[in-house]
Amino acid sequence: MRFPPAIQNLIDQFSSLPTVGPKTAQRYVFYLLKQPVEELQKLAQYIAELKEKTITCSSCLAISESNPCPICADKKRQPNIICVIASTQDMLTIEATGQYNGLYHVLEGLINTIEDIKPEQLNIKQLVDKLKKNSIKEIILALNPTLEGETTVMYLVKLLKPYKIKITRLAKGLPTGANLEYADEITLANALKYRNEL
Amino acid sequence: MRFPPAIQNLIDQFSSLPTVGPKTAQRYVFYLLKQPVEELQKLAQYIAELKEKTITCSSCLAISESNPCPICADKKRQPNIICVIASTQDMLTIEATGQYNGLYHVLEGLINTIEDIKPEQLNIKQLVDKLKKNSIKEIILALNPTLEGETTVMYLVKLLKPYKIKITRLAKGLPTGANLEYADEITLANALKYRNEL
Repeated sequence: MRFPPAIQNLIDQFSSLPTVGPKTAQRYVFYLLKQPVEELQKLAQYIAELKEKTITCSSCLAISESNPCPICADKKRQPNIICVIASTQDMLTIEATGQYNGLYHVLEGLINTIEDIKPEQLNIKQLVDKLKKNSIKEIILALNPTLEGETTVMYLVKLLKPYKIKITRLAKGLPTGANLEYADEITLANALKYRNEL
Repeated sequence: MRFPPAIQNLIDQFSSLPTVGPKTAQRYVFYLLKQPVEELQKLAQYIAELKEKTITCSSCLAISESNPCPICADKKRQPNIICVIASTQDMLTIEATGQYNGLYHVLEGLINTIEDIKPEQLNIKQLVDKLKKNSIKEIILALNPTLEGETTVMYLVKLLKPYKIKITRLAKGLPTGANLEYADEITLANALKYRNEL
């Protein structure tokens, strides 16, 4: 016996979401069954309209509701600093710090040898074009300090070196609230290597 | 800065699902953004139709697409054994064993003193009505062996005793594949108490 089709179809659809298995999908569906119809209609509408109402900013390549996106259109932001990020989500995370006033460039992924994501699949060509056409002072590589992030950083540094631009990356070290005892060796080695003078 | 409304609204909606926080919701939305429009339309449609296409079986009170549900309508099932379960999901779990051929009765919850769920809020009255109107031979209480489940079992046993019906419950003991070393004391105590002769 399986669930009635109306329930099973939705379980199957939810199961395709990242990290969601059939049990979690089932939980979502039975939660939704207890919600008022209006809530379900609202959720359905937002999903149906998600792609219609969003576009890719032709300048920074972030997902936005307008082109150019509000950040690229903002005249108060420094146009000669570009922060290179893996996804639109990372843009929000950096914006939340309130410490950055330049522009962004979304790669839409990271080089990944295991999942076979090659540099050509990322928005790297567009970044190079930007460097050629505009006077860029600094490129900040704000990529995850993971194998994929490091690979992409190495690739970009090699590619962008000829343009004689300042290339920087996010600092590596101990995260706030960390416990030395539990820090892994690489993090601690980086914290030592890049220690700050007081 | 927040996400564009089309994205933020959907993140907020997903965040209301059980165990889903804003970060997970965000992950779902950005996953959906990469899917073809047809997939999104399908998901939206299933959600919108979920409640329209499902009803409660007036006999076992399970969520179904027909009334009576396929199990209650099945003439081959023993009508004088009722398995009492907390939710429609548990029905599927028991059906999956292929070991049960009676009917079900869904309580729609368990007595919970912390969340203030009282017996009156559960489908207990309907269960008593069934006992009065039909000749029931056995009631199997298939409730979780948790505080809420045990409370509900105790309540039901006291309530149903006067009807002189055989009342049973699921066996307690070690789950398959368990390791004695890691079994908690209550489980082990139950396994000892209810040991089987070979």
